[in-house]
Amino acid sequence: MYITVVFHKEKRGAERVARVISSMLAKWGAQYELQEFTEDGFSNPIGCDALIVLGGDGTILASIHALEEPETPVLAISFGRGGYLADVGPEEAEKAVTALIEGRYYVERLMRLQADIDGEHIGEAVNEAYISNQLVGKVVEFDLNVDNLSLQNLVADGLILSTPLGSTGYNSSLGGPLVDEELELIIATPVAPITNLRPLIFSSLKKITVACRRGPFSVLIDGGMRRGFKTGSVEVTKARHYTVLIRTSSTRLCERRIKKRLNL
Amino acid sequence: MYITVVFHKEKRGAERVARVISSMLAKWGAQYELQEFTEDGFSNPIGCDALIVLGGDGTILASIHALEEPETPVLAISFGRGGYLADVGPEEAEKAVTALIEGRYYVERLMRLQADIDGEHIGEAVNEAYISNQLVGKVVEFDLNVDNLSLQNLVADGLILSTPLGSTGYNSSLGGPLVDEELELIIATPVAPITNLRPLIFSSLKKITVACRRGPFSVLIDGGMRRGFKTGSVEVTKARHYTVLIRTSSTRLCERRIKKRLNL
Amino acid sequence: MYITVVFHKEKRGAERVARVISSMLAKWGAQYELQEFTEDGFSNPIGCDALIVLGGDGTILASIHALEEPETPVLAISFGRGGYLADVGPEEAEKAVTALIEGRYYVERLMRLQADIDGEHIGEAVNEAYISNQLVGKVVEFDLNVDNLSLQNLVADGLILSTPLGSTGYNSSLGGPLVDEELELIIATPVAPITNLRPLIFSSLKKITVACRRGPFSVLIDGGMRRGFKTGSVEVTKARHYTVLIRTSSTRLCERRIKKRLNL
Amino acid sequence: MYITVVFHKEKRGAERVARVISSMLAKWGAQYELQEFTEDGFSNPIGCDALIVLGGDGTILASIHALEEPETPVLAISFGRGGYLADVGPEEAEKAVTALIEGRYYVERLMRLQADIDGEHIGEAVNEAYISNQLVGKVVEFDLNVDNLSLQNLVADGLILSTPLGSTGYNSSLGGPLVDEELELIIATPVAPITNLRPLIFSSLKKITVACRRGPFSVLIDGGMRRGFKTGSVEVTKARHYTVLIRTSSTRLCERRIKKRLNL
Repeated sequence: MYITVVFHKEKRGAERVARVISSMLAKWGAQYELQEFTEDGFSNPIGCDALIVLGGDGTILASIHALEEPETPVLAISFGRGGYLADVGPEEAEKAVTALIEGRYYVERLMRLQADIDGEHIGEAVNEAYISNQLVGKVVEFDLNVDNLSLQNLVADGLILSTPLGSTGYNSSLGGPLVDEELELIIATPVAPITNLRPLIFSSLKKITVACRRGPFSVLIDGGMRRGFKTGSVEVTKARHYTVLIRTSSTRLCERRIKKRLNL
Repeated sequence: MYITVVFHKEKRGAERVARVISSMLAKWGAQYELQEFTEDGFSNPIGCDALIVLGGDGTILASIHALEEPETPVLAISFGRGGYLADVGPEEAEKAVTALIEGRYYVERLMRLQADIDGEHIGEAVNEAYISNQLVGKVVEFDLNVDNLSLQNLVADGLILSTPLGSTGYNSSLGGPLVDEELELIIATPVAPITNLRPLIFSSLKKITVACRRGPFSVLIDGGMRRGFKTGSVEVTKARHYTVLIRTSSTRLCERRIKKRLNL
Repeated sequence: MYITVVFHKEKRGAERVARVISSMLAKWGAQYELQEFTEDGFSNPIGCDALIVLGGDGTILASIHALEEPETPVLAISFGRGGYLADVGPEEAEKAVTALIEGRYYVERLMRLQADIDGEHIGEAVNEAYISNQLVGKVVEFDLNVDNLSLQNLVADGLILSTPLGSTGYNSSLGGPLVDEELELIIATPVAPITNLRPLIFSSLKKITVACRRGPFSVLIDGGMRRGFKTGSVEVTKARHYTVLIRTSSTRLCERRIKKRLNL
Repeated sequence: MYITVVFHKEKRGAERVARVISSMLAKWGAQYELQEFTEDGFSNPIGCDALIVLGGDGTILASIHALEEPETPVLAISFGRGGYLADVGPEEAEKAVTALIEGRYYVERLMRLQADIDGEHIGEAVNEAYISNQLVGKVVEFDLNVDNLSLQNLVADGLILSTPLGSTGYNSSLGGPLVDEELELIIATPVAPITNLRPLIFSSLKKITVACRRGPFSVLIDGGMRRGFKTGSVEVTKARHYTVLIRTSSTRLCERRIKKRLNL
């Protein structure tokens, strides 16, 4: 058993808790590695049997994207703003690691999206793919095509294709619905639409094609990986891999995400 | 083969088209019955092998609810405003009936919702169940419970539980997402929420419980059947029956519904 | 100086604080009257030089509407949910009354709206006039006319005409903007619109005419006074009278209202 | 009388109509200059007694910003998408110019906003100033301060400060209200807010201060002029100059803008 523990150094208390977790893992007899997350992310892929990550949603997403094996189970411990991806806060960290060590946990497999541009694979999104103009405050013109729907000549600042897990992220900041992460579906949410457009929900079995005219465009995946292009079609489908989360507590991720978003 | 043809007398042209359809059915050798829809609806259940209905969404919904056998296939021909339930307009009526006669059609099964109050069955909703105060402009206080989510002490004028087919109806007038009707899921959309609340999406396998305090309340199903109650829990689940639609054309219901709603 | 003190008996602590205030007024030498607010409101008009009211927004609005002289200054002390109309909570009540007695206060005059149906005066709204079908879940058809704008054949469950002070009420539950109460303007916000419609903002110098077809309709003023009608035009203009609030503290009503509404 | 006629070459028909207008002006005896609008805008300021501009909203805004004297009266003739700033379309162009020549017109003065960064003047906005991160999909942290309101630690992709005339632009794409352009007020509309925030409306007499932390930021004025900065306070107030529009027809700008935006 080889476990990588990632912590965000600037999140107050994250390093201290990471060190406590490390000694728990050592005592248990697991091999582990302690990694510090910086704004530059990781230069090398993270190869391990399980990932424990302590930080905000940005840190959690970057760590997941750095995994050598995308379906490595992840235990996320939320530090700082957000925390939509973790159902464990700092105060429950030790309890969660104990549960992990004692085998009192299960894993949850949550759907991802995959984005391709004109057939070239760009990446997998845990939360969302955000198609937009490369410049803030400039519109894109696009057609949205699904097998049983074709909307032509749409104009907006962008379009966000979100997973259920990502629904409490960008999607909801732009008026999209909050979705139970157990569901498999694709949410398409416009950013500052000029033509009439609203959040749309499609089956995860469908391919969403966004034909982009008049660029330059970019696709931004999970707020981290950005790819520019001049013109072309972005295809968004359910990804081959899942996001695999380690769940140890009786807190309910769906409730936590939704209450957090509603400020309740 | 016994076919009932329902038309809304006040929708311009509906009666004339209904008579044309009747003679087509007669020529074909089918038995048929011509029924006029009035604001009072139907005093007796409609027993038939297939229903052809010409009118607006109100007429279509009322006719479906009057069916003796809930899963009787329905060919809906849209007259007037709305028409979110039909993908055939008046001008395509004859073509659609010809296709039906010649066997060039298929049926689509779309999920319904079922509403119970404290265990007593109230009815099945093709579009939505609307829980509210009995008076316009008065709030209700309620808790929303699903297996993995509990939101307490919510205050709003009402809550709408909608099917994907119904998503282009009340749900979308209140800011909810537009959903491909092929999906099976439940949308909960608040009406004039005072506490923070937004459209939520749940699996169709879940039971949504809305515990209502400080009434008097009403549940309104598909804008037609209304049931008052003082206090109690409304349970909304996927219904036992489906809405069965006869589809004859190559027009796409999903596209038609969404474009109509977006005014495109 | 004759002061009426109104309290809502069921709001925890309101009566006790009302009695404390009464003895403060007695000591000061003012004449006063203590009135209990019930769901039935007041059978007689409240005649006084100043009104002190302890309760939620419903109590405050009902007390203001019961004033014999509409522009009697009001000191509102918020008990319970809401409290958008008061910038004093229970804990600041004594301090506020002391300030009132010692002359350390000022009055604020906030615009009201007036609603007429076909020329007949219906009432003045502190917060809003809500035009709708008489039944929950039924639409109205109407035209909206202002001098430089005419929108025809609108369909919605209702239309709310709100003051800036009322903007944090019904208007905002339905997606309307939050407005500094010092401004004078009229906000028209649709309820569950089927035709495309959004919150609109007009000058307070304009007359908004809502021509209603296919009723029965009702106009509900400040959630309390309801008037039914079959068909006709509702005219909404700036009212002759103002809402006159006594302000004693350094808390800022605008900030309080907006933060409350944003759950900040 | 010296008149500049600007046309967008790529808008179908704009050049032809511009030439017709030029000969009308020549016949009338006015001096005029014909200028072609390109994506690069204008290298020199436009000095004239009146401006006639034929193009979309982008062309109209760029031409207004190129005016040597900001309050030069402008006759805008709409070609292409948008046209929220013009109440004359191509087909009415000759009639409008005839009215101008014959003196059958009036001018309308519409408020602008002024943006300063830490006291340095940035520019005047006909429509809006858009404060954001310099990168698409990255948040900004800011405080919003007005004299009677202070909202701290807000997080969003951006904040748009809009005039009433601009309300049908970016503001409304992001859910803000549609405002009669005759009013003077300031609308603050968040872009993809993470903290609870909604469109807010302030008096045009107020100074809105947006204290920006954690950049790099940019302020984009009317979708054309962009200024980057690292950290600092953006102050938005009513500008010294007005937008001066020549109105010749009986069409109503307010109605035209609102109907266009509602797709009615």
